[in-house]
Amino acid sequence: MKQTTLKIKEDDNSQSLATASLENLYRIFTVPEAPNSTLGAIDKEISDNLMGFLGDRIVARERSLTAIEEDFSTPDIPEVPQFVSDYTDFVLDKLVAHSVHTSAPGFIGHMATPLPHFMLPLSRIMVALNQNLVKIETSKAFTPLERQVLGMIHGMVYERKSEFYQENLHNSRRALGTFCSGGTVANISALWVARNQMFLASNDGEFEGIAKEGLARSLKYKGYDDIAIVVSERGHYSLGKSADVLGIGRANVVSVKTDANHKVDVDAMRAKCAELKSKNIAIMAIVGIAGATETGQVDPLDRLAEIATEFDTHFHVDAAWGGPTLLSNTHKYLLKGIELADSVTIDAHKQLYVPMGAGMVVFKDPTAISAVEHHAEYILRAGSKDLGQYSIEGSRPGMAMLVHAAFHIIGRKGYEILIDQNVNKAKAFARMIEAKPDFELITDPELNILNYRYVPSEIQNILDNSSQERQKSINEILDRANQRIQKQQRASGKTFVSRTRFSQHKYGGEAVSVFRVVMANPMTTLETLGAILEEQLDLANRKGTAAIIDEIAAL
Amino acid sequence: MKQTTLKIKEDDNSQSLATASLENLYRIFTVPEAPNSTLGAIDKEISDNLMGFLGDRIVARERSLTAIEEDFSTPDIPEVPQFVSDYTDFVLDKLVAHSVHTSAPGFIGHMATPLPHFMLPLSRIMVALNQNLVKIETSKAFTPLERQVLGMIHGMVYERKSEFYQENLHNSRRALGTFCSGGTVANISALWVARNQMFLASNDGEFEGIAKEGLARSLKYKGYDDIAIVVSERGHYSLGKSADVLGIGRANVVSVKTDANHKVDVDAMRAKCAELKSKNIAIMAIVGIAGATETGQVDPLDRLAEIATEFDTHFHVDAAWGGPTLLSNTHKYLLKGIELADSVTIDAHKQLYVPMGAGMVVFKDPTAISAVEHHAEYILRAGSKDLGQYSIEGSRPGMAMLVHAAFHIIGRKGYEILIDQNVNKAKAFARMIEAKPDFELITDPELNILNYRYVPSEIQNILDNSSQERQKSINEILDRANQRIQKQQRASGKTFVSRTRFSQHKYGGEAVSVFRVVMANPMTTLETLGAILEEQLDLANRKGTAAIIDEIAAL
Repeated sequence: MKQTTLKIKEDDNSQSLATASLENLYRIFTVPEAPNSTLGAIDKEISDNLMGFLGDRIVARERSLTAIEEDFSTPDIPEVPQFVSDYTDFVLDKLVAHSVHTSAPGFIGHMATPLPHFMLPLSRIMVALNQNLVKIETSKAFTPLERQVLGMIHGMVYERKSEFYQENLHNSRRALGTFCSGGTVANISALWVARNQMFLASNDGEFEGIAKEGLARSLKYKGYDDIAIVVSERGHYSLGKSADVLGIGRANVVSVKTDANHKVDVDAMRAKCAELKSKNIAIMAIVGIAGATETGQVDPLDRLAEIATEFDTHFHVDAAWGGPTLLSNTHKYLLKGIELADSVTIDAHKQLYVPMGAGMVVFKDPTAISAVEHHAEYILRAGSKDLGQYSIEGSRPGMAMLVHAAFHIIGRKGYEILIDQNVNKAKAFARMIEAKPDFELITDPELNILNYRYVPSEIQNILDNSSQERQKSINEILDRANQRIQKQQRASGKTFVSRTRFSQHKYGGEAVSVFRVVMANPMTTLETLGAILEEQLDLANRKGTAAIIDEIAAL
Repeated sequence: MKQTTLKIKEDDNSQSLATASLENLYRIFTVPEAPNSTLGAIDKEISDNLMGFLGDRIVARERSLTAIEEDFSTPDIPEVPQFVSDYTDFVLDKLVAHSVHTSAPGFIGHMATPLPHFMLPLSRIMVALNQNLVKIETSKAFTPLERQVLGMIHGMVYERKSEFYQENLHNSRRALGTFCSGGTVANISALWVARNQMFLASNDGEFEGIAKEGLARSLKYKGYDDIAIVVSERGHYSLGKSADVLGIGRANVVSVKTDANHKVDVDAMRAKCAELKSKNIAIMAIVGIAGATETGQVDPLDRLAEIATEFDTHFHVDAAWGGPTLLSNTHKYLLKGIELADSVTIDAHKQLYVPMGAGMVVFKDPTAISAVEHHAEYILRAGSKDLGQYSIEGSRPGMAMLVHAAFHIIGRKGYEILIDQNVNKAKAFARMIEAKPDFELITDPELNILNYRYVPSEIQNILDNSSQERQKSINEILDRANQRIQKQQRASGKTFVSRTRFSQHKYGGEAVSVFRVVMANPMTTLETLGAILEEQLDLANRKGTAAIIDEIAAL
C-alpha cells in the first residue's frame, strides 16, 4: 500500500486522489462530495433551478468548434488524479458552457425536449442502483418493471384485452417488445425480427434458420434472388443503416415516392411490391412512418397494412417521433392503422419527455421475438425471464424506470395536454408563416413538425410564373440564402431551427433547402416563434433581398 | 386551457399533476421538487451516503419474482397523474427494495462495479444537459470530448505518437472509434466494420460495396461460398449475436478449442483458418479475448495477430472486461499483442467504474470506420464532425463525459491501484479455495475472474481414480449440488456468486457446473471472501455430503 495522505484543497472540501493510494481510492467510493464543495454546489444549483442552471451556465454566443476542440485535444489519460473541484471547474467552463441548450424555448430545430424536474432525482436513483437489465440477477424488480413498460406501450398501440396482457406480460417465453437506447436500435431490432421470421428453421431439419445459417444460404434455400425493404422516400436514415447492418444492403431499401402532402404514395408502394415479387426479390418488410423526421407527416398506415397483407410481409411502423400521439384522444386518429403493424418503434426520449437513451419496439405477436432469441451458459438460460435474451444490446441501464415514472406522474391526461398543445402551436406557427409575405410554408403540419423557407415576396411571384428550369435556378439561389440564414441564426445562439432538403411537388420534384421546426417544448410561446421569424428576416436583410433579386435577374 | 388548481399534498411539498392542466404541466418543467418532499429527501439521502442508501433501502431477503411481478402487472398507462411523493413511495417500496445491491462487497458474481461518489453529481449534470451525441447541433462540446475519450482509449491500446493523434483526433474524415451503450454493440460495430471493409466498392464501378449491395451479392461478386468468424469456444455470446445480426449466421462463428488454461489453442485456430480457406469460405475476422467472461483468461493475442496477418483478415480483440488492465504497469504485459488488433472493444461501465451504458470500440486505422459511414440530409452531412456518421446507434446520451471525468479524477495511477488490487485479491481467493479440501479450484485467475466448485474431499479422491465415464456420472451429481448451493446462496441475499458451465480438460473435455467470481469491488475484503466460502459449505451440509456420497456409491 502506498502512502495514505488525503489531500484536501484548502478552499474546498472536495475529495482528492491527488495522492493516489488505496485508502484515497476507498474514499471516492465511500465518502460523498461535501455539499459546500464545487461539485456539491453545482449539484444543488441544478436541483434547485434546472432552467436557471442551463440558462446561466451555457453561454449563448457560439464558440468555434476548432477553439472548443483545443480543450479536448490531448489523447493522454492523466497520470495523476485531479481534484474533483478543479475538474468541476473545467467541466463548467469548457464543457457545460459550450454545450447546446436543448431545452431553451427557442431551440426548436431538433427532436430535443426539456425534462420535467422530477427526472433529475429519479435519474439519480437509477444511476445509484446501477442495475443491468440484461438479466434478473443484476436487475430483479427492474425486469418486471421493464416488461410492464413494454406492456404499456403495447397496450397504447394495440389495445388488446386484459387477458392478453395477463398471459403475456411476465411470460418467460414471450416478450411484448424490447427496450433499447433509441429509435435506431429499435428499428434495427424490428427489422432483425422481420428478417429472421422470414427464414425460420424448416421442420424437416434441412434448413436451420437464418439466425444460424446466415443470409446468403437462407436466400438460396428459399430460392430468392435478393431481399428488400420498402419504405417512403421520407424514411429515417436508420432504415438504410439497418439494411447495411443486417446484410440486406442500402440499395435494397426500395424508396417509394410521396404525394404532395409528403405521405407515401400507396399505389406506388403497391406497384413497387409487385415489381419486387415479379423479380423474385423477397419483401422482408414494408415500413410506414408515423411522424416523419423531416416533415412530421404520418403515412396512411391502414392502407399500408393492406399491402403488407396482400404481399404477406412484415409491416413495421417507425413511430419513434409520432407514437405518443396515441395518448391524445383528439389526435390519435391520425395514426389509424398502427394497430395492424407487426412492430412499432417508439422513443421515450422524444415526446415522452424522458432523458436521452430510451427507445422501444413492440411486437403485435408476443412470440415473434423468439426469432432472435439467444442464450448463454452463465446468464440468459432458456426459460429465464432475462430480457437480454431478445435484445441487440447486452448490458443496459434501467432507463425503463424513467418511462414508468413519467407515465405515472404525468399520466395519460397530462401527455394529452402536452401533445395537443404542441400540435396546436405548430398549426399556429404555420399560420404566422403564411401571414408573412417573405416566407413560404413548405409543409403544413399534421403533427408538430413543419418546414418553411425564406422567399422574398417579389421572388415568390417570379417563381410562380417561371418555367421549371428557371425555377430550379432560382431555387438554387434561394437555397444558399436559406442555408446562410440558418447557419447565422445558429451561430448567434439565441434560437435554433434546423434545415433539411427534400423534393417538392410544387417545383417539379426538385429538392430545395428548407427550415425544419419541431414543436415539443411546452415553454415555447407564440412570442418565441414570432421572434424567430423576425430574426430570420433580419438576417435575410443583412445580405439584402436586393442582392438575391439581382442574382435572379442575372440568370 | 383547463382548470389551473395545483394540488399540494398537505404533508409534503411534492409537485402534483393530480389535476392535469397546462399550468400544472408547466410547473413540472419549471419548479423543482422541494428539498423536504419525499423525493427531495431521497435525493439528499443518496447524495450524503450512497452506500448507506443502497444498504438500507434494498432488502436483503429475496422476494419471489412472481410476487414482485404483481406490482408491475397492469398494462394500463395511468389515466390521471399521481403525486410525485406517492410515486416515490412506490419506487422505494416496490422497485428499489427489490433491486439488486450490485455494489455490495459480497456481490461478486457478475461484472458489476460500485460507483465512485463523484459519478452521481456528474451524472446529474449530464442528464440535466440532455445532449444528443448523434450530431454537433445537439451536443457541441460533447462531441470533441467524446472524440478525446476515444483518443485516450486508442492511446491506451495503440500508444501511437502524438502527431498521429494531432492529425486524427478531431479530423472530420477520421474516427478513432465509436462510443456506444456497451460491449455487445461495440463488438457488433467492430465486426460490421470488418465485414464491410472486406467488401468495399470496386474501382471499376462494377460492385458498389456490401453496405449498398448486401451480403449475398457481395459473396457472389467475390466468389466466396460462405463467410465466417473464428473465435475461442470461450468467446462472449455477443459474437454469436453479432453473426446473426450481420447476416453471417451463428453456425459461421467457428469455435476453436481452448487449452488446459482456457486460452484459445493457437494451432487449432490456425488449422481452422486453413480449413476455411480451403473450403473457399471468407474469414471475416478472427477474435481474441482479453478477459473471458466466464474464466477471465486472455488469449495469446500476439500469436493470434500472426494468424490474422497470415490469412489477411481482420483481428478483433474483445477486451470489454480486461482492457483497463492496460492501465496497470504491473499487469499490462498480459495483453501483449493487443496493439496489433485492428479493433478493440472496451467497456467503461466495467473496470473503469462508470455507470451502466458506456461501451467503446477503437480502430487501429482511423479510416477503417468509413466502411460504415452514413449520411442524412438534415444531419450527418458529409464532412461534418457529427459522430452519428459512424455509429450503429442514432440518438445517444453524453456518457463519454463520465469516462472523461473518471480518467481525470482517478487518473492512470488510481486505476493501476484498483486493478492490481483486484488481481491480487483474486489470487488470494484462489489460494483460500485451494486451502479448503471441499472445494476444487477450476480456473487459476490470470486477471480477476476465477471459477471453482464444491467437491467434498472424499469425492475428489473417488473422482481422481475413476474412469472417464464414471467421472461424468459423478460430475452430474456434483453439478446438481453446486447449482443448488448457488441458487440458495443467491436467495439468502447476503452474498452472490454466479455459476456457469464449460468443458474441463481434466475431465476429458466434459462440461461441469462451476461457481464464477468476478473481483472488482474495492470494498470486498478477504473476510468477505472467507464468509462466502463458509456460507457455501454451510449450504452444502444442509443437504449433506453424506447424501451425495450415497448417490455416487449407488451409480
